[in-house]
Order: sequence, then C-alpha cells, then structure tokens
Amino acid sequence: MKMNGADALCDTLLAHEIDVCFANPGTSEMHFVAALDRKPEMRCVLGLFEGVVTGAADGYARMADKPAATLLHLGSGLGNGIANLHNARRAFTPMVNIVGDHATYHLQYDAPLTSDIEGIAKPVSAWVRTTKSSDDVINDASDAIEVASAKPGQIATLILPADAAWNEVQNGKVTPRAKPKPQQVSEEAVREAASAIRNGKRTMLLLSGMALREEGLVIAGRIAESTGVRILAQQSNGRMQRGAGRVAIDRVKYRAEDATADLADVDQMILIGAKEPVAFFAYPGKPSTFLKPEATVIPYADNTCDLIHALQWLADELGIPANAPVTLNKREKAILPTGQLNSNKIATVIGALMPENAVVVDESISSGRDFFNFTHSSAPHDFLQLTGGAIGIGLPLATGAAIACPDRKVVALQADGSGMYTLQALWSHAREELDIVTVIFANQRYAILHHELKNVGAGVAGRNATHMLDLVNPTLDWVSLAKGMGVEGARASTAEEFADLFAHACSRKGPFLIEAFI
Amino acid sequence: MKMNGADALCDTLLAHEIDVCFANPGTSEMHFVAALDRKPEMRCVLGLFEGVVTGAADGYARMADKPAATLLHLGSGLGNGIANLHNARRAFTPMVNIVGDHATYHLQYDAPLTSDIEGIAKPVSAWVRTTKSSDDVINDASDAIEVASAKPGQIATLILPADAAWNEVQNGKVTPRAKPKPQQVSEEAVREAASAIRNGKRTMLLLSGMALREEGLVIAGRIAESTGVRILAQQSNGRMQRGAGRVAIDRVKYRAEDATADLADVDQMILIGAKEPVAFFAYPGKPSTFLKPEATVIPYADNTCDLIHALQWLADELGIPANAPVTLNKREKAILPTGQLNSNKIATVIGALMPENAVVVDESISSGRDFFNFTHSSAPHDFLQLTGGAIGIGLPLATGAAIACPDRKVVALQADGSGMYTLQALWSHAREELDIVTVIFANQRYAILHHELKNVGAGVAGRNATHMLDLVNPTLDWVSLAKGMGVEGARASTAEEFADLFAHACSRKGPFLIEAFI
Repeated sequence: MKMNGADALCDTLLAHEIDVCFANPGTSEMHFVAALDRKPEMRCVLGLFEGVVTGAADGYARMADKPAATLLHLGSGLGNGIANLHNARRAFTPMVNIVGDHATYHLQYDAPLTSDIEGIAKPVSAWVRTTKSSDDVINDASDAIEVASAKPGQIATLILPADAAWNEVQNGKVTPRAKPKPQQVSEEAVREAASAIRNGKRTMLLLSGMALREEGLVIAGRIAESTGVRILAQQSNGRMQRGAGRVAIDRVKYRAEDATADLADVDQMILIGAKEPVAFFAYPGKPSTFLKPEATVIPYADNTCDLIHALQWLADELGIPANAPVTLNKREKAILPTGQLNSNKIATVIGALMPENAVVVDESISSGRDFFNFTHSSAPHDFLQLTGGAIGIGLPLATGAAIACPDRKVVALQADGSGMYTLQALWSHAREELDIVTVIFANQRYAILHHELKNVGAGVAGRNATHMLDLVNPTLDWVSLAKGMGVEGARASTAEEFADLFAHACSRKGPFLIEAFI
Repeated sequence: MKMNGADALCDTLLAHEIDVCFANPGTSEMHFVAALDRKPEMRCVLGLFEGVVTGAADGYARMADKPAATLLHLGSGLGNGIANLHNARRAFTPMVNIVGDHATYHLQYDAPLTSDIEGIAKPVSAWVRTTKSSDDVINDASDAIEVASAKPGQIATLILPADAAWNEVQNGKVTPRAKPKPQQVSEEAVREAASAIRNGKRTMLLLSGMALREEGLVIAGRIAESTGVRILAQQSNGRMQRGAGRVAIDRVKYRAEDATADLADVDQMILIGAKEPVAFFAYPGKPSTFLKPEATVIPYADNTCDLIHALQWLADELGIPANAPVTLNKREKAILPTGQLNSNKIATVIGALMPENAVVVDESISSGRDFFNFTHSSAPHDFLQLTGGAIGIGLPLATGAAIACPDRKVVALQADGSGMYTLQALWSHAREELDIVTVIFANQRYAILHHELKNVGAGVAGRNATHMLDLVNPTLDWVSLAKGMGVEGARASTAEEFADLFAHACSRKGPFLIEAFI
C-alpha cells in the first residue's frame, strides 16, 4: 500500500502505542495533519500556543507512563515550546517532538521562517535528528521513540522536512521495537549502600523518579523504619504518590536556609534516582549546596536504573522482610477553615475535599510551599510539579494529565503570574472538556521575587523595581480570562467561599476556575 | 563612586541613549532590577510573558530608530522570547538582550534552571557573549550596543551571570562609543545599476529597509517616473511609510501564484536593501522563486548600505533632477461601507477614519492581504508588519510602537489565532495606558492553513485536521479576554458597528479592543 512520509510517521508512532499528539501545526506540517485524518486512532489535541503543547505532552507522559508526540511548526513553534521542554527534560519525561521544516530544497532560499531548528532543539533534547527523505522516516521515528523511552525518559526531537513528509515511501515497513530495558544496580553498589546504612552514621535516602511511586515508597518506608534512616524526596520531582494509605515523605526545602537547617545532621546521603541537593539560585556569600562539608554522598542508584528493584534489593540486603512494618498515612478529614482566605487555608480545603485519586498539578510557587503539611492525610493523589523552574507549566501540565486520566479529577494549583505565561491552556480545557479545577492563587504579584530581591542582598523594591514585580494597575481578572476561553469560573475571598466553590467544582465534570484572592 | 556590574550595565545603556527596558526578570536578574531603582531615567516596561517583551522591543526600535534593551530570565525566559526575536532578526531590528544567568560558580551544580543559554541565543542573535566578571560589563555591553546599532540593525545578546551583576566594578568607566557608520555603494555598482536601467529591458527596483521611508520612496518614485522602471517593496519589511502625500508602493504578493504572475514580465530586478523574492513555503512541484529563469538580479545596494544615499546617487547618475516630477497619493476619504462585516470593509473603514500619522501594526495574516488596496489614499501612517512569519507579534509590536510614539495612535490589525499567542500584551497596553486600538479579525480559524492544506496538495480538512485548524468549540471571546487584562472592548458584526467603534476608539486616548466578526 502506498504511503507518504507523514503516513509512515503516524504509523510508526501508533505502532509504539503513541496515540496522542499535542499540536499546533503550520504550513510545513500540513501533510502530517492530512495524515492524521487517515488515522482516526490518533487523538489530536490543539494548543493555542506551543508552550501549552509541550507542557501538555509532559503532563500526559508523566501520568500515562509513555510518551506523547508533539507537532510543532519550524524553529519558532519549537522556540515557543522551549520553556516547557526544559521542564520536561528536568522531569525526565519521555517525549517525541515532531518539528516540521521547509522542504529540503527550499532551505537554500532562506525564506522568512527559516531558522536553525537543530540549534534551538539541542539545549532541551537528548537526541535531535533531521530526516533526510521519506525513506528514512520510519527508522528515524523509531530511533526517536527508542531514545525517548529509555529510562528515565528523555526528549527526542525529530525534524521533518516538508518533502520528507509529502514524498512517497519507496522502501520501509513499520516494525515496533522492544522497549529499552532499564539498568540494574551492581552487587557492589548494593553492598556499599547497605554497609553505609549499618555503620551507625545519620543516614538519609534521597528519592526521586519511580522511587516516589506508592510501591517504591513502601519499600523505602520499610527500610527507614527498620534501620532508622530518614527518607526525603528531591526538591523537584516529575510525579509523587501521596495521601492516605501511602508513606509520608517530604521534599528538600526550597529556601536555602531552610534546606540547610533540615539537612544539618545528615552524615551520609544515599541517592536513589535523585541528585545531591543544590540551591535553586546562588546568593552572595552563601554556599550552593546544603549538606555539611564532611557529609558523604553515596550515588547508589541513578535514574537510568530500575529504582523499585534497587530499593527492594537494598531491603533484601539489609535483611528486611517483605512484611516488615511500615507506617502509612491515615485518612483524616481536616476541619474546614473560615475567614479571610490565605494559601494554607486553600491547602486545608483542598486536602479535606479533594476526591479520591485526584491528580494535583502544582505551580503555586511561593503560595504552595506548605501544601504538603496539609495534605499527607487527604485522599490519595498523584502530585505533579514544576521541575525545571521555567514558569508557565501548570495549566498545560493539567491539560495533559487530564487527557491521560479521563476518570480522575485534576486539581491545578496555579500562581497568577506564572499562570499568565500559558493561559491559552484554558481554551484546551474547554475544548477537550477536561475534568480540571484550576485554583488561581491571586496575590497580584511575583511574590517570590520580592523575597528574592532581599535574598540576593539587593534590598527592598523601589519605584522601578515594584513596577517589575507587582501585577497591579490593572489587576488581572481571571474569571473574565477564563470566560474568554470558554471556562466557567468564580471568585473567592473567604475560606468559606473557596470551600463552597471547590466542592461545587468537584461535584461536576469539566473545567472550572476559582480565582482565590490571597 | 562605587558601582556593581548591574549599575555599570544600566549606565552603559543610558550613555548610548538606550533608556527603555522591556523586561520580565527573575531571581538571577534581581541586581539589575535593583539597579533600575537607582536609574529613574530608565523606563521599565513589564511584559507578562517574554514573547511580549521581545516583540515590544522590536516595535519600539522600529519606530524609535534605536535599540531597546530587553531583560530576560535565563534560558527559559530567552526561549519564550525566541519567536519574536526571530521576527526582529528578519526585520533587521537593533536590539540588546540582557539575559541573566546563575552566578558563574553555581553553574557546576546544574541547578534546575541551568540551561545552555548561548545555544538558545545563537539562532536568533548576530552576537552572543557571556560576561566573565563585573569588570567586563562595560566593555561587553558597549560591544553589544555597537553590534546592535550596525546597519541594518542586529540582535546582540549579552548573558550576565548573577555574580557579574552583584560584584563591584574595580576598573572601568562608561564612555559612549560613536555609532557605527553604514557602508556606501561603490561607483562601479551605481554605474552598473544605471546602465541596466538604460538598457531598455523591463526593470524593477525592489526596495526594503530605509528605502521604504518617505524620503527613499520619493527618490525611488522619481526614478520610476523618469525612466519607466517599476518599484515594488519586498514582501516583509520592518517599516514602511504610506498614505496620502507619499509615493504609492505595493509589496511582493504572498501567494506564490500571485507573486509569479505579478513578476512575470520582469527582465531585471535591482535590489535596494531587499532580497530576491522567494516563496514563503515550498509546494510540491512548484518553484521556490518567482522571477522567470532568464531574469537577471542586480544586487545594487544591500541593507548594510546607506540606502537613501544609494537611491540618490542612482538618481544623480541617471541625470534625474531633484525637482523631477513624482506622483504622491492624494488624500481621498473612502465612503464608509455598510452591511455584514468582512476584511475589506474593515480596511475601508480604517482607511477612511484613521487619524493623521497613525502607526499601523499588521498581523492580520490572510485577512489583511488586501489592506494596501484600501489605504494608499488614507491619512499618512507608518506600517509595521510580521517579518519572520513567527506568529504572535502583533499585540507586542503595538506595545513597543506606542511607547516609542506616545503622541501617535497605534492601530493593531490582529488575526485571532495569532493574537492568542501573545495576548498577555493587552495587559501591558492597559498598564502603560498605551494609545492603541486593537482590531481582532475574529474568523475563528487558522484561515491561512485551510488554504495551505490545499496548496500543498494535502486536500480538504477532515475530522482530525479540522480539529487542528478551527478555533471553535469553544469560540474565543476577545472582549472578555481584554476585560480580564484591563482593556475595554466591544464587538462588531456589521460595517456600521465597526465604523462607530473605530471612530469611538480614535476619539479617545488609551487602549481599546474591537472584536470584529468576519
């Protein structure tokens, strides 16, 4: 049967179970769009800006545990998606980007949209390739998928010239490849880690990646209770499983002074899919790392490993039986707060009212720092966060998570300043009828930056600086913004109003936005 | 007097008359923000997304004929600004980007926001440098400004590590440098061009850059009327001066078949700051260029040259006196249209009602293709357009133009799909009280892509493709979007309503948005 390069690409994606494509196509991708028409099993989700597209693909992959495809328009479309690709890279999200380019023979004319696509792609991609012809599409796409699927998940960017899409494939057959297998830790490494745990020093297991899923946390929790080591999660993680019935775990704190204090008594840190904690930013005269200088770091299992296996093997090596005790969070319903709303009251309400098995997407920035304190005992949920510090991830991430998990409520905790970066995602919430309740933390400022101005020793904001840090004159009206994109919304100034609105949003399907004045 | 690197950078910008900074800073730029507080003469304009920041800097520089500075937050902030930097590069806009980075000693820790900033900057910058220390800031910033100011205007990106900003400058003094001088065409080139014009073949002068300002067009118009050559503007140009009292000029047409037909009888084309026209995209089986194969192209004056001088010298060489006749557009008020609104009626109303000396910013895409036909005889105005094909330029470009020209009305012609890319600019319209009337061409689709799907031979959109090309379910409500960002707006479905609203918007100062259903 005849097929062109675009058909071959679609077939290759589908053969590897990649059946969702987040997209904002242009002229150079029209053959791919036309191919999508011939592949009804491929679900296409339009984002009205590429930051939405890449952030949604990230959210999808984090929840589906498989890559999504993105379809982007040349270097500028890719450029618009860079910030959330950066975040996805930091989350170790598997992703396959298809970036259209001019027909190969057209590049020499330097038409207006011509740009160095490979150059733009490289800083955020583990793998970049430009397909040479339609006959190379199947192999190139299969390579891209293989790279993306390798543990811990990587970003592969395939650049598809228009003529490679529209020309017929003369030779080639789509053959699904086996999924790459993760590494295993070595016997030497497990002995070293176990021996460290037994040496009597104050030890911490620092976890990330799959170690933060329910199964990994139970094993880590058993190790902790049996040996007295402490467990902690990395500051930024792609996905954590939390709430009632699960092992409680906190993260490395964001603020350098808090993190340093929290880690002050750690003599040795064993890394399980995590990196040694470092400060998010440097501050004049302050150290970049948090551990005391004499502490040792034991890189037991890096994130290319099967972390569940690494944890279980460590437990076995330590002689911990599979039925050793482990403390799980008990379900406790918090008492609903009252009065003037603030961040902690929002967290309390959400902790009390969120439905079973929700997906919480967190880009609340400074407003959500204490969210964990209020939600260890709430209904079990997955927690997805901003991983790379590039703001504008929340609303897109929620989009993708909701598409991956149509039967679960998605709760998006969204700071106002960051939310403005990719507010176009609200339209996709409406278009795809996604079951997302968005909570806007409307503090009308880049609150974090007021702190940071002081932290870096630059003082208190004056006229020009305040003009850069405060989102006032005019204040944003998120209910109107949501309405403009077809999403119903309402405002809350008190905890009672917020609880009523949140309960209402949880009692129905579909997108809803709450602008919470704090 | 003591100063840190951030102070030195501000002083260097101000010493070179760069006194507007479009910004969205983060922690790594806090010392620069603090320095801005000590420099009240630097005007800071906040954009709620970096695509707004870079597009506004472009619009400012196009109208002010000098660079604006931008302040961007690490690789992700720069990445968000890439698409409009691509457009600015294609417009040959002078621009100095300041991109903050981690402190030099912090980079080794690969903190979450660490990325290859130089790698992201290079595809859109003529010059990229990372400052090594506070003592290098003055020289590096002066180099950046010099590169940016060289004809025809270039993008210079200076990466400023946080410690280079916060450390004290031990050695260094700000000394303004002279502006780089443009090239001059050679005597040989002017003789060749004049001789070509005299050889009896059908000749076209293709103009861009400064040749499209009033002064250049008058000289070009005299040459055309005295010798019978035809003049035409490049398809995409940073800035054109048009309307009553000026020489009428059209642009190379967008659609390949229209452009080819229009250029069919050109035997030789003389380039004045322009490039030989090429198709925006390749289409299967169609040529990438428009001129007939036997036509000759004479690259008389490239855009590094003083184009006014090049035109005048050519006129002199041809013996055309300074008072030779030239036809200027006569002011004609169009009759206002009635009935159901469409793009051409919008153009007619704007042509009839726009105030003297307006700045028209055009990102109407397919809806504005015929705008010139209706506005040659309207009030004189400047015309700024999308130059690099990366959508999302219109609302930011209008922002910058309005800041550069506070006494002129800015009319933004904005397609709906493209407008959604950087709608955050509306907030800056409100915050800075900019005198901008935005006209949204609300056709609820990426209309151009429906044509392009056919053009590339991919057929008519089916279910999946339509889902990618139409902005329906839900439709956008631009009046609510504008309200959400503090901009007043209203809707028009008929030509009468549109004319009333446009006249109203022109009769007052400040931002106003008209959602025009077409």
